[in-house]
Amino acid sequence: MTIQTEVKPRAEADEKLMATAIRVLAMDGVEAAKSGHPGAPMGLADVATVLFNRYLTVDPAAPAWPDRDRFVMSAGHGSMLVYAIHHLLGYADMGADQLRAFRQLGARTAGHPEYGHAQGIETTTGPLGQGIATAVGMALAERMQNARFGDDLVDHWTYVLAGDGCLMEGISHEAIDLAGHLRLGRLILFWDDNGITIDGGTELSTSTDQRARFKAAGWHVQGVDGHDPEAIAGAIEAARGDPRPSLVACKTVIGKGAPTMAGSHKVHGAPLGEAEIAAARKALDWPHPPFEVPDQVREAWAQVARRGAASRAAWEARKAASAQAAAFDASLAAPDQAALAAAMVEHKARLSDQLPRVATRKASEMALEVVNAVLPNSIGGSADLTGSNNTRTGGMRPVTRDDYAGNYIHYGIREHGMAAAMNGIALHGGFFPYGGTFLAFADYCRPAIRLSALMGVPVTYVMTHDSIGLGEDGPTHQPVETLASLRAMPNLTVIRPADAVETAEAWQIAAAATDTPTLLCLSRQNLPLVRTRHTTENLTARGAYVLHRAEGPRDVTLIATGSEVEIALAAAERLATEGLRAVVVSAPSFELFAAQPADYRVAVLGCAPRIGIEAAVRQGWEQFLERGDAFVGMTGFGASAPAPDLYRHFGITAEAVAALAKTRIEGRT
Amino acid sequence: MTIQTEVKPRAEADEKLMATAIRVLAMDGVEAAKSGHPGAPMGLADVATVLFNRYLTVDPAAPAWPDRDRFVMSAGHGSMLVYAIHHLLGYADMGADQLRAFRQLGARTAGHPEYGHAQGIETTTGPLGQGIATAVGMALAERMQNARFGDDLVDHWTYVLAGDGCLMEGISHEAIDLAGHLRLGRLILFWDDNGITIDGGTELSTSTDQRARFKAAGWHVQGVDGHDPEAIAGAIEAARGDPRPSLVACKTVIGKGAPTMAGSHKVHGAPLGEAEIAAARKALDWPHPPFEVPDQVREAWAQVARRGAASRAAWEARKAASAQAAAFDASLAAPDQAALAAAMVEHKARLSDQLPRVATRKASEMALEVVNAVLPNSIGGSADLTGSNNTRTGGMRPVTRDDYAGNYIHYGIREHGMAAAMNGIALHGGFFPYGGTFLAFADYCRPAIRLSALMGVPVTYVMTHDSIGLGEDGPTHQPVETLASLRAMPNLTVIRPADAVETAEAWQIAAAATDTPTLLCLSRQNLPLVRTRHTTENLTARGAYVLHRAEGPRDVTLIATGSEVEIALAAAERLATEGLRAVVVSAPSFELFAAQPADYRVAVLGCAPRIGIEAAVRQGWEQFLERGDAFVGMTGFGASAPAPDLYRHFGITAEAVAALAKTRIEGRT
Repeated sequence: MTIQTEVKPRAEADEKLMATAIRVLAMDGVEAAKSGHPGAPMGLADVATVLFNRYLTVDPAAPAWPDRDRFVMSAGHGSMLVYAIHHLLGYADMGADQLRAFRQLGARTAGHPEYGHAQGIETTTGPLGQGIATAVGMALAERMQNARFGDDLVDHWTYVLAGDGCLMEGISHEAIDLAGHLRLGRLILFWDDNGITIDGGTELSTSTDQRARFKAAGWHVQGVDGHDPEAIAGAIEAARGDPRPSLVACKTVIGKGAPTMAGSHKVHGAPLGEAEIAAARKALDWPHPPFEVPDQVREAWAQVARRGAASRAAWEARKAASAQAAAFDASLAAPDQAALAAAMVEHKARLSDQLPRVATRKASEMALEVVNAVLPNSIGGSADLTGSNNTRTGGMRPVTRDDYAGNYIHYGIREHGMAAAMNGIALHGGFFPYGGTFLAFADYCRPAIRLSALMGVPVTYVMTHDSIGLGEDGPTHQPVETLASLRAMPNLTVIRPADAVETAEAWQIAAAATDTPTLLCLSRQNLPLVRTRHTTENLTARGAYVLHRAEGPRDVTLIATGSEVEIALAAAERLATEGLRAVVVSAPSFELFAAQPADYRVAVLGCAPRIGIEAAVRQGWEQFLERGDAFVGMTGFGASAPAPDLYRHFGITAEAVAALAKTRIEGRT
Repeated sequence: MTIQTEVKPRAEADEKLMATAIRVLAMDGVEAAKSGHPGAPMGLADVATVLFNRYLTVDPAAPAWPDRDRFVMSAGHGSMLVYAIHHLLGYADMGADQLRAFRQLGARTAGHPEYGHAQGIETTTGPLGQGIATAVGMALAERMQNARFGDDLVDHWTYVLAGDGCLMEGISHEAIDLAGHLRLGRLILFWDDNGITIDGGTELSTSTDQRARFKAAGWHVQGVDGHDPEAIAGAIEAARGDPRPSLVACKTVIGKGAPTMAGSHKVHGAPLGEAEIAAARKALDWPHPPFEVPDQVREAWAQVARRGAASRAAWEARKAASAQAAAFDASLAAPDQAALAAAMVEHKARLSDQLPRVATRKASEMALEVVNAVLPNSIGGSADLTGSNNTRTGGMRPVTRDDYAGNYIHYGIREHGMAAAMNGIALHGGFFPYGGTFLAFADYCRPAIRLSALMGVPVTYVMTHDSIGLGEDGPTHQPVETLASLRAMPNLTVIRPADAVETAEAWQIAAAATDTPTLLCLSRQNLPLVRTRHTTENLTARGAYVLHRAEGPRDVTLIATGSEVEIALAAAERLATEGLRAVVVSAPSFELFAAQPADYRVAVLGCAPRIGIEAAVRQGWEQFLERGDAFVGMTGFGASAPAPDLYRHFGITAEAVAALAKTRIEGRT
């Protein structure tokens, strides 16, 4: 807590100017772009100024310094607030040219803050509520890291600015509940309570007492005038002094500073226009041309940066003196690929030896035992399906409000909150998060999965019960279109392994990933081991490969994934008894196969007629099948019945595949 | 309110037996299936018995009687509760054979309650939280219908049973907020507060004070012992007497009646086993064999059915005497197809005459003016993007807690709650709901869209800003995989119109639908009218059609959707200057095209090389393109910039298409 004792609040006049600079840069940036949202940055300028000036600790010269405070602009449409502040703080990549190029092609100043586009952007926001939920993951990661390395190395805060939209979205409920339950006292959420949404006043659509709501979830709650610096500072002090996560409800005027438009929904999402901007300059007593900032203001903001630099220097000194320095650095490093590979090869050898007939969700647990032994900073969890997802390995113990040293999170029935929290944990650094639910409920967390993919965050989704093979729970729980919908998403590696060996390989890929999320689709039902011949090579990393060769030239190629590989093999056997040569291709990952060289893909797929087999809709199979090729799968929703009955009912059987293959072979000759 | 005065509570002994019958049927059904969830039905048997016995009004002989009370089992895994009650009430399709066949292929007794599978199932539940949110739509529809037709014809209640999972899910927040805001006093929610989730005690994952939370959302809140009939009855009385929606927190013991397993998470989702069931029979003093119900109990439940029948008879008499009877019936009937078609043909003729250059979101508003004039019971709305989605037509006025006669709903920033509420409104009957958001945020409501499709509920999703064409808001707001993810979903008609005429045709399809939801993908940016020659035929209903013919045999076929049709036409023009004959196919709906006869499809697609053009990923284009065909679209996420810059940046231009077409044509000859 040494950092805070050095805080020297700036004189009130300085803070007013500092805030005015944000307001003006925001309105000028939006005006230059002829597009954007001036209302939130102008309304939140005072809150943000007090927060950055007096409390928030970052060092623009070292944007990724591990013990920095995290700042999340959950109301992402107010991105100009972030860009303006980063410009004023002197982030090297946020010159005035960037503000001028707001929302233009190639600029760092994207319409919404994009992680990786500019220094200091902690997470991508814009889809409402995601920022809050991601920040919960960050604040949790801070406590977990603190429990492992102590106050000297880990002692920072997570601050979030959120609007009415963030608080109306369902994900905020999951996030707020989880934060209250885990008592994340290092999380402080500022609610931009401006009474305005796009459609008009908030009274159009909400009557909720937000303060009471947060209290019900176990939060510390305060309300302040969001334009009164001392009140804001007092609230932050009190929030920091309370062991619970804190809501600071800030009464603000949207677009404050715009003389005629402030306080109205017109200022939310459109440029103010020349006349209003000129009047605002007058009213704000800011005679400077667009994007010019007077020295006095620059100096005031530079002082904030200097405070951050001093904090970082102090931290570096503490770290140099710490016996834990090496372990701390190791926790932040990429996973040890060689160790992971070696352990997994050993595990695969054992499997090929023992031939376990297990569900791939069980095989996942077996592989996770290996992964978790190699990666001590892995953090497991499930959305209340631990025993079904098989996500908790031996020796894992729960993370609780009393013990952040645990490594397993009971996320509750909160798929969306879980996924966003995993994003936050991964973004924070120091941990390798994975979490489970049923594959059908990927839909419940899809907006957060999309952000994992868009940001390139290496989290792992463990999604079990991956087809009609789950049986009696019926169509609401049976994914049929889910695989296609996930394969459509850019930068997401979807893997549907066929047996315990492919599951092991899938986990190796997931655990080794550094800039891509991985989503594992795992069976509820038991499956035989199909990879009976041990290979050191990770064949799953090829995306698809020949699992079963034919003696002589192939008559047909059967391509299957997951639980349907067993069916393809049985069909090939049937065909063999009639002298027909079927090759079986196992295709656990379409994305990984697409990334293979063309000659490899051609060799795997061959020139014989092809049949695709997957207990799901055909969409997405186009890289394997021509339009004229056959597909054995689903064309609509599933049904409630024991799994074997369903496979027969929907015609996904070795008999059906073999019969179809024969007509194809005959049709060809 | 005449119904309630007739209520004659059964003697206490009867209610105990009535509840025991539910418990035993539930545990026996699950045991027979060797799969299912006995815990919730056994725990909720007392609450359900009091509710059905004393308050809830249904007539098993007329399961769809419009003024029946609605019962929603939001904790859908407890489906045996519903099946047991329906069996006991004497629903014609719920004989003991159905209970014996619980969760078996073809049985009405699916693992989770499936709308349309059995009489009296008001909505499909299982995905948690959906039941609550759908019930909000039902309760709102009741009030809206009441405002139009008065108490004599519309005077019913919506009752929901929900578990901890329902209340943890984010969608519950959106639903509860909306219900409180709209003061839906006819909605009564029983929370099965049993302290148990799948992972163990609720203390593992939640600390939220649910009662305080509901209070914060404007609900009336009570807590009772869920096994004390008089307390339950008293709470229902009080709930019905309060103008706010009501939460009744029912302290229950999960699996109550199972002597050794009750109160533990082991009873949640697995059969009790023979020994426990035998012991339960003893403890419950129920000597009867499985699925046998003694006459005394049958009679007690039959009395409930008789009360319902009497209520319905009284209602029929009131209706016969009502001047509004015909109008009421008309409001429940399917839309007037002929009137709709005639009005839309007229609208199309005007458009082909006036050639408006508008965004399809604006064209949608123009078409909606026509639709809303023909369908007086259409209910519009938006998730706080009214001005962007163009969903509010002239003369529409908001539905508020003080005026349910309105026809436009400000759903707030609650996409998921909106979609589920629309399901509830449509299921309730009497209204044609549509609602808007940005297409990228289809992800936020996808679980409810899936239920629209699974149930076959004719709601319309108005999704604007449908591509990178939205420009500066950037990749978080730009759908690239969203179209593919929605096209993958069975029984959902996705339409992406190219201009104002196709938008009109799309709306005609949506408004005429009776068992399929429709999702419209609409542009933010202006588009020229491409359907300059008026046709009375709804060409969009063909899914795809030749928009631009070539003189002589075609050299190439350019297939495009939505805003990219303009690009395809420009490319065809360029090619024509070089003497190359390009046919342009407009393909607004892949699902509708797939349903066309093969010869039509072949004629449209032709034999020349094909190029697909859509500002989205290629997945899903396989019915139009062979693997070797070219596609001009997106391969990853978008970017933040003005739309024209983005189209150029990602190479989706007429120049690029024309150049590609030339290489294809040359490669062929």
